Amino acid sequence: MSAVTLREQGTAFLPRFDADGLITAITLDAARGDVLMVAHMNDEALRLTLTTGIAHYWSRSRRQLWKKGETSGQLQTIVDIAVDCDQDALLLRVAVGGDGGACHTGARSCFYRRLVIDDSGTPYLTRLPDADSQR
Amino acid sequence: MSAVTLREQGTAFLPRFDADGLITAITLDAARGDVLMVAHMNDEALRLTLTTGIAHYWSRSRRQLWKKGETSGQLQTIVDIAVDCDQDALLLRVAVGGDGGACHTGARSCFYRRLVIDDSGTPYLTRLPDADSQR
Repeated sequence: MSAVTLREQGTAFLPRFDADGLITAITLDAARGDVLMVAHMNDEALRLTLTTGIAHYWSRSRRQLWKKGETSGQLQTIVDIAVDCDQDALLLRVAVGGDGGACHTGARSCFYRRLVIDDSGTPYLTRLPDADSQR
Repeated sequence: MSAVTLREQGTAFLPRFDADGLITAITLDAARGDVLMVAHMNDEALRLTLTTGIAHYWSRSRRQLWKKGETSGQLQTIVDIAVDCDQDALLLRVAVGGDGGACHTGARSCFYRRLVIDDSGTPYLTRLPDADSQR
């Protein structure tokens, strides 16, 4: 198999980190099925996630390893992880501890606003009911 | 309001493109609610998505604007778009044309493999039933 075929069709886990050493992680609430957040992992965050079963990320703003929920109690226990075709993105389904939220603003999901286009073609945001998250 | 508060709590759409001029886009099948793919948009792809109602991305590998489905028929009609707290990620809910799939490999969702850890601690991938995508 070619390298591309191996990566796309094979059974080997060959995560493709970008130039900054990061892979995209999308985190879903396993019970509700909705998207809670999008973050990144470096090699160490991925390794810790796999060995501990608790989601770890790399904080790009703080430039440090980030055990999600370590201070808030919103720990994310991994239910399962899916990998995309070119292995540069992971889809984590998690059970959330604490109050069940994920966003530092206090919202349950980080996707608490919807994009709307007004009559003049200008986009603006409206807040969604928290229970509704991205729907 | 501070710039951060404005971005996180305000109604202004202030997309935060990264150093490469890209924003992350997660695309969900609106009917099924599952994640189809993760891609990126530059300013032009975002503008075209908003003005045409059809998802456009920026292909990092081909380094060109990418109207998803233009050749495959898997056009993605926007149902709605949510924006995350720091406005560096979009969540698109779409109705998919053609055969309803999104992945260039022929799978419906790009997330067609699950990560499994074997008894020795080595991660590997197993293919999910296509109808099951990331579950």
